[in-house]
Amino acid sequence: MGYTLTTTVQRPYDETVEAVREALGEQGFGVLTEIDIKATLKKKLDVDVPPQIILGACRPPLAHQALQADPSIGALLPCNVVVRSQDEGTTIVEAVDPEKMLGMSEQGAALNDVACDAKERLQKALAAVSG
Amino acid sequence: MGYTLTTTVQRPYDETVEAVREALGEQGFGVLTEIDIKATLKKKLDVDVPPQIILGACRPPLAHQALQADPSIGALLPCNVVVRSQDEGTTIVEAVDPEKMLGMSEQGAALNDVACDAKERLQKALAAVSG
Repeated sequence: MGYTLTTTVQRPYDETVEAVREALGEQGFGVLTEIDIKATLKKKLDVDVPPQIILGACRPPLAHQALQADPSIGALLPCNVVVRSQDEGTTIVEAVDPEKMLGMSEQGAALNDVACDAKERLQKALAAVSG
Repeated sequence: MGYTLTTTVQRPYDETVEAVREALGEQGFGVLTEIDIKATLKKKLDVDVPPQIILGACRPPLAHQALQADPSIGALLPCNVVVRSQDEGTTIVEAVDPEKMLGMSEQGAALNDVACDAKERLQKALAAVSG
């Protein structure tokens, strides 16, 4: 069992990034942060890696509930959703599994509803991108 | 054992945020993302929480090594460093523990050096802020 929810789609990278943004929005997530891994590693290390972006997805009501249960939980937020190119027509979408992530907290039981809700929404977003 | 490296400092919030940025820079981390939790929850939910920010810290050579060991590891990046106000003169700084985080990967052994290096740097940054 890994730490991500994953889907592989037969769509090019750029199109998939846009589809992921849209699907996250439909599930009530805002994208609060973005890290373009390819651009960052090129700029900082002058190395070439395949296109890859980390989108930091946050559903504020869930974040608020989580913070109330465990004031340290900000260290595990937001929910990262990574889009990375496998080849020209194939793209991998991987979201961190909220159950695994929030399971790191000693307040795991109090966070269970939040984790399940977030996981269900991310699964639906991934299904929408695959469908 | 929690999932964060933590220090509590007798300094106000804004001053601590700046000290954390500086200390991370001295340890070779760039701050690639920022989420102002207080502002976000106020804007989205109209709730008031104490000042809190999530800084997404990344040391590109470590990120590159980690991605080579486990292509899915982007879902666990960057290293979050949270600064949150406890009261007017007391601020908590919590960094996610890279050993705990990268320990979620099945490539844990290959990531061990990266995790140790990142952890040592974060510990030094926290010590600099406390000192």
